[in-house]
Amino acid sequence: MNIFQQRESEIRGYCRVYPAIFDTAFNARQTDVEGNQYIDFFAGAGVLNFGHNNERMKQAMIQYLERNGVTHSLDMHSVAKQDFMQRFVKTILEPRNMPHKMQFMGPTGTNAVEAALKLARRATGRQQIVAFSHGFHGMTLGALACTSNEAFRGAAGVPLNHVAHYPFGCETPCKGCELGCGLASLKQLRASFLDSSSGIRPPAAFMVEVIQAEGGVKIADITWLQELQALARELGALFIIDDIQVGCGRTGSYFSFDGMDLDPDIICLAKGVGGMGTPLALNLVKPEIDKYWKPGEHTGTFRGQGLSFVAGAEAMSYFEDDELMSQVHKNGITMLNAIAPLELQFPHIQIRGTGMIYGIDVASGEHAKEIVSECFNAGLLVSACGTGGRVIKLIPPLTIPEQDLQEGLAILLEKTTQVIGGAA
Amino acid sequence: MNIFQQRESEIRGYCRVYPAIFDTAFNARQTDVEGNQYIDFFAGAGVLNFGHNNERMKQAMIQYLERNGVTHSLDMHSVAKQDFMQRFVKTILEPRNMPHKMQFMGPTGTNAVEAALKLARRATGRQQIVAFSHGFHGMTLGALACTSNEAFRGAAGVPLNHVAHYPFGCETPCKGCELGCGLASLKQLRASFLDSSSGIRPPAAFMVEVIQAEGGVKIADITWLQELQALARELGALFIIDDIQVGCGRTGSYFSFDGMDLDPDIICLAKGVGGMGTPLALNLVKPEIDKYWKPGEHTGTFRGQGLSFVAGAEAMSYFEDDELMSQVHKNGITMLNAIAPLELQFPHIQIRGTGMIYGIDVASGEHAKEIVSECFNAGLLVSACGTGGRVIKLIPPLTIPEQDLQEGLAILLEKTTQVIGGAA
Amino acid sequence: MNIFQQRESEIRGYCRVYPAIFDTAFNARQTDVEGNQYIDFFAGAGVLNFGHNNERMKQAMIQYLERNGVTHSLDMHSVAKQDFMQRFVKTILEPRNMPHKMQFMGPTGTNAVEAALKLARRATGRQQIVAFSHGFHGMTLGALACTSNEAFRGAAGVPLNHVAHYPFGCETPCKGCELGCGLASLKQLRASFLDSSSGIRPPAAFMVEVIQAEGGVKIADITWLQELQALARELGALFIIDDIQVGCGRTGSYFSFDGMDLDPDIICLAKGVGGMGTPLALNLVKPEIDKYWKPGEHTGTFRGQGLSFVAGAEAMSYFEDDELMSQVHKNGITMLNAIAPLELQFPHIQIRGTGMIYGIDVASGEHAKEIVSECFNAGLLVSACGTGGRVIKLIPPLTIPEQDLQEGLAILLEKTTQVIGGAA
Amino acid sequence: MNIFQQRESEIRGYCRVYPAIFDTAFNARQTDVEGNQYIDFFAGAGVLNFGHNNERMKQAMIQYLERNGVTHSLDMHSVAKQDFMQRFVKTILEPRNMPHKMQFMGPTGTNAVEAALKLARRATGRQQIVAFSHGFHGMTLGALACTSNEAFRGAAGVPLNHVAHYPFGCETPCKGCELGCGLASLKQLRASFLDSSSGIRPPAAFMVEVIQAEGGVKIADITWLQELQALARELGALFIIDDIQVGCGRTGSYFSFDGMDLDPDIICLAKGVGGMGTPLALNLVKPEIDKYWKPGEHTGTFRGQGLSFVAGAEAMSYFEDDELMSQVHKNGITMLNAIAPLELQFPHIQIRGTGMIYGIDVASGEHAKEIVSECFNAGLLVSACGTGGRVIKLIPPLTIPEQDLQEGLAILLEKTTQVIGGAA
Repeated sequence: MNIFQQRESEIRGYCRVYPAIFDTAFNARQTDVEGNQYIDFFAGAGVLNFGHNNERMKQAMIQYLERNGVTHSLDMHSVAKQDFMQRFVKTILEPRNMPHKMQFMGPTGTNAVEAALKLARRATGRQQIVAFSHGFHGMTLGALACTSNEAFRGAAGVPLNHVAHYPFGCETPCKGCELGCGLASLKQLRASFLDSSSGIRPPAAFMVEVIQAEGGVKIADITWLQELQALARELGALFIIDDIQVGCGRTGSYFSFDGMDLDPDIICLAKGVGGMGTPLALNLVKPEIDKYWKPGEHTGTFRGQGLSFVAGAEAMSYFEDDELMSQVHKNGITMLNAIAPLELQFPHIQIRGTGMIYGIDVASGEHAKEIVSECFNAGLLVSACGTGGRVIKLIPPLTIPEQDLQEGLAILLEKTTQVIGGAA
Repeated sequence: MNIFQQRESEIRGYCRVYPAIFDTAFNARQTDVEGNQYIDFFAGAGVLNFGHNNERMKQAMIQYLERNGVTHSLDMHSVAKQDFMQRFVKTILEPRNMPHKMQFMGPTGTNAVEAALKLARRATGRQQIVAFSHGFHGMTLGALACTSNEAFRGAAGVPLNHVAHYPFGCETPCKGCELGCGLASLKQLRASFLDSSSGIRPPAAFMVEVIQAEGGVKIADITWLQELQALARELGALFIIDDIQVGCGRTGSYFSFDGMDLDPDIICLAKGVGGMGTPLALNLVKPEIDKYWKPGEHTGTFRGQGLSFVAGAEAMSYFEDDELMSQVHKNGITMLNAIAPLELQFPHIQIRGTGMIYGIDVASGEHAKEIVSECFNAGLLVSACGTGGRVIKLIPPLTIPEQDLQEGLAILLEKTTQVIGGAA
Repeated sequence: MNIFQQRESEIRGYCRVYPAIFDTAFNARQTDVEGNQYIDFFAGAGVLNFGHNNERMKQAMIQYLERNGVTHSLDMHSVAKQDFMQRFVKTILEPRNMPHKMQFMGPTGTNAVEAALKLARRATGRQQIVAFSHGFHGMTLGALACTSNEAFRGAAGVPLNHVAHYPFGCETPCKGCELGCGLASLKQLRASFLDSSSGIRPPAAFMVEVIQAEGGVKIADITWLQELQALARELGALFIIDDIQVGCGRTGSYFSFDGMDLDPDIICLAKGVGGMGTPLALNLVKPEIDKYWKPGEHTGTFRGQGLSFVAGAEAMSYFEDDELMSQVHKNGITMLNAIAPLELQFPHIQIRGTGMIYGIDVASGEHAKEIVSECFNAGLLVSACGTGGRVIKLIPPLTIPEQDLQEGLAILLEKTTQVIGGAA
Repeated sequence: MNIFQQRESEIRGYCRVYPAIFDTAFNARQTDVEGNQYIDFFAGAGVLNFGHNNERMKQAMIQYLERNGVTHSLDMHSVAKQDFMQRFVKTILEPRNMPHKMQFMGPTGTNAVEAALKLARRATGRQQIVAFSHGFHGMTLGALACTSNEAFRGAAGVPLNHVAHYPFGCETPCKGCELGCGLASLKQLRASFLDSSSGIRPPAAFMVEVIQAEGGVKIADITWLQELQALARELGALFIIDDIQVGCGRTGSYFSFDGMDLDPDIICLAKGVGGMGTPLALNLVKPEIDKYWKPGEHTGTFRGQGLSFVAGAEAMSYFEDDELMSQVHKNGITMLNAIAPLELQFPHIQIRGTGMIYGIDVASGEHAKEIVSECFNAGLLVSACGTGGRVIKLIPPLTIPEQDLQEGLAILLEKTTQVIGGAA
């Protein structure tokens, strides 16, 4: 028995999917202790948009350490934080005329969601939050109440109250789905909120992902999102976008909602915002909402992560010109071209995605699991998501070399065809 | 207006207490952009037990980065994690015959507490948790329900259910306190749990700090802790110690409860466990409790922090011999000798503490605030804690040089005497 | 100031609508202290199906009192209870092959609902109940969570959890309603319950009224009810019909769902079941569900009401032959014929009803209030119900004399036309 | 199988304790269908203070029925209600200078408690209620949360939140009890409410019984009650007395708290207030609290019970002079004299009581059950209460004839001695 089997909690999960001990990693490749290399289409669950050990970030971090930069500062001011904020404001917020304040909290996505929920409840004096089927928002009790997956919810051990779930408005209905997504469903919901005898009240906030990544790469219909925002405004509720997994460039623009004519009151960011995998989380909050906070009401020890600020500031350079985002579009087309034939070949398969996030819904958790396993054995890391793990999710680093992308796609195609074809 | 005033959320707190922009830091000293130096008696809220930019840790991190070590790995296996676990098991667990499993979760203390609560509820099939007055356990909804401070609780925006609070069993009653701590109170509580008509039921767990750091440096009575553990056993409840702020050597031993003949079912660690301020959290869970987890039930993106594993493993060297822990005892005596006279001079003041955590309860939040401010101006960072912020908390890095400790204590004495004396 | 103004709580309501002091009453007429007579289309909110001071019941009660029959017996056995149960079983349950057990609880409808909720939760091990928009189920905290009206819910003072509301499946959509009732909505709901990532779980029970009386005389579509029952069966949930206001003959048969091919697990009865206005409540529970009760788990002082058993047993005689039920059908036609023209005359008005319950939805609470007031002044008691009180509800005693019915309808028509016409 | 076995719910309870079918009853005697007579020391669980079929009440009810008095009127004005209110105000409220308003609700004790809770929460804007160990307040979800008995609470099926239980302040500690009742405990509680870091907040109300009847005839210490009221005032919380079981003369005065220098904000009444066993409930509410109600916020069909008003008004005559209350004192002494020797004979037995409510705590539910059963067989109805049913409760009608009281006590003594002595 190795140390993990001896001493790590039974809860460990990914290590069962990828039974290797990883040692080093660079850009889109990981190497295990036995020298095996793996092309990474998982990117640390969407954290490593700029690749493992991104050279620029790494050098900046080393330099910062060498000069004894402050590594940990709670919510004190630091030079690293100042730099990060200045670059973020200049690169991301100002070009979009976004007046949002930046709130740093405990450096996890779930913490960002928790803070957003608190503020929405404070600002509106209401308790109920509306979240959506297949949404994922975190594991701590407040965020977990927004997460829809039964297996996660079942671990709470207490009722998950004050959040109601309604069908997510998919751009394309999943095959065979009868959840009743879309605008008709939203119209009904509106009628319920406006009817004082419906039994439901206008909520504090609507919490939505533009792309449900964990939920199975489900993409929201733009009109549905716009109507949802309009409904929030009409009801005096906040419109919150959880952009934790698909923000930071994943869709080919910094925010997943860029160009959709949306104006969220709060945007939750984490994962990629810290640059190279050291934790950081950040809410962007409209000033008129932010003013409801009293100093120190939502604290957290690790709010000021020097190394994350340094790497995160470095990440801004990718958004100062179009180079990487153009590459994302190009890579996305490469990905789609590669996998689209699967949909034709196997009619029960559905491909969903945009930018550099794609899902292959193989309609079977068992098949997906086998594909993931076969890919791993062949040197490719992909993961399964969605209900019962039936969707293969492809989220390589945005910086993946062309060659690695092609090679990974080839493995994926081969193994998928083999598993699905063999099962047919 | 600087970038912070322009763009940082109103929730920012410590930066209002310490109005400087910090740039570099080393061991127990921080330097701001204007070149001012500050002796640090705050240590990043108890994170930086081994000092800012601890040389050995820093070099290990740089080396790890330079060789492209995996920085972010969720709960996959990595060499860095393997090393950390091996050293932790060998240095901390094995010498104590602790069979506990190690569970890594989102890298924050609040996340560790959330995981512990879920597991306690799962393992017992009960919902209620018992926490204690003046306890602090985090800010996410599940942990927040355990936290007792009204200002934090009030930000939840929803009822904080399924946790009941009872008086903490202080070693020494605070002056004027009538909460009824101690064994008599515990005996009553036991009677209530055993009485089927009391209206309260045996809980899933008792969650306790050995020293309530945020709560105002309140130290639990050892017999009370032992009786509490016995009560937990009798009721089939878990006994959980939140050692997040005072574990990792703060009290002169790795765990704050070392030598107390306690055997907690779960121990929550965070803050110092990551070594140098990069986030990490860890629950130690008895195997017979850990088995209640199903793989992947409590996830979190940042469960596998390479740099934290590297620095955290390096921290183990401080527990392989007695040098640092001896120093902690010696420094503690220095601290106590310096501040004890305050209690004699000002009868309403109470000194509480052990190891290298001391609190000066000045019985007035206003006075404490003024002392903190005056110390800052004189080049010393201390913070206030406890109800209304009435307690000055002293938690310098364990590695603080003798000279810095003396210098800091001198400033503290002078400013405290000045503020309290002036007010008298 | 009279005693009511001096000493009755501000919460008093109907006395503000009908500012008279009532003295005597017989069948469908009430007389106030000044000798004014009122035709009663309100029937004590649906209690007095058999008229005020029903002669047979009254004589039976007097006789019972004179022989010192047990008036109050909790859930002890009594002769009066025995007689009631025997007649109820023989007249109501056996002809329908209903195996249901009879559970008596605190003598109010809300108490019957509370008992049904407890049992459904016990039997299924689930917490969530599904209730419907515009439903009314009572005022105590458990039942109130099922009630949908915001004004009632707002008085709870605590969150009303563990109940979710969805659109009620109206036979005929209300004019302008966009709640999305009907089978399409139910199909979506089914999909949500069957999808483990929808965020909602199969409930303990579906609680539904066949006619939402307080909700504005909304009649459920039969197919919708059948599909709802089928969904309950599929999900392992209970199907509960709250027949408190429209059972006991109101629709022309004993149960409102007679002839609909429904087989509810629990049926809640109260109001008319006690015969003449003395309180009684009763749940009919399938034996396989009833067995989940332990003796004495849901108690209540007034479970055994001798006078209610006596009058309630007498009421059975109305269901031993067809006479009264035929009369109900005939009277219903009379009512519909009288009011149907309103719908033609005023296109925004909608008439809804069956048996001897009809609602005139005038689409304005203000208008309805004025009509109620004008009718009162002209000697007719009607009440308003539905959202904002916009529906005039007609529920005369089933035993109302032809002459009184005609006279009452004439007043109603005149006043409605006057108010609505005048407003036009 | 009789009809009860065939068709009554498994939940039936008292009929298992008293396996007879009761037919008639007069004052303190009940007769079953086989002609057996039973002396009644149970009085319908405290309802029948004035005896079964109290002659004056019965005649008034018959007369009322014969003249077609309004039997059911919701919260409309009626002559019967007017008379009841006038007599109640004149006889009960005015002599005590009580300005309280009278609120009628659904005619059950649990409904009175629910209404009180709603109003307390509304008036204070707080959610939490403080209730006490061993208290009983009803079975509907809001009231049940205040009830402390585990068996009742366990039937809820959902968490019972927003109520905290603390030790009841017994006049005399029960033998062996370590709950920590009394003033010391209250002082601690006060300290907790005043400490903003205790984890508990000042409540909306304290809900207390002066004598916990169901809880095992536990009598509150007067000073404790006074301090409790003072604490409520200090915290801005309401002080609510649930006088449902021991009000209406049971203790020798109308209210159980008469003469204790208490001034409750709300008093809950039910049981005996309706006179002869027909349901009625009533809250007495201070005008400054009552004003928080909006009309119709807490409704209920059976708020206006004509026969209960008639009998209840008749009950007032017992409080217009001292005759009955003197008799209660005299009877109480008779009771105490009879049973006090048990305490001497059997040291583990404790006698508790006052007025005409006494409990014999035999410290064993099994023994108590056997005593109840033996008494029944010998022609005496008594019931068990308290934790595990270990207390024999004696609550005969206040109007019990001397001879019946003596005869009943003789049976009780004999059977108790026999059972306890036999077990020794």
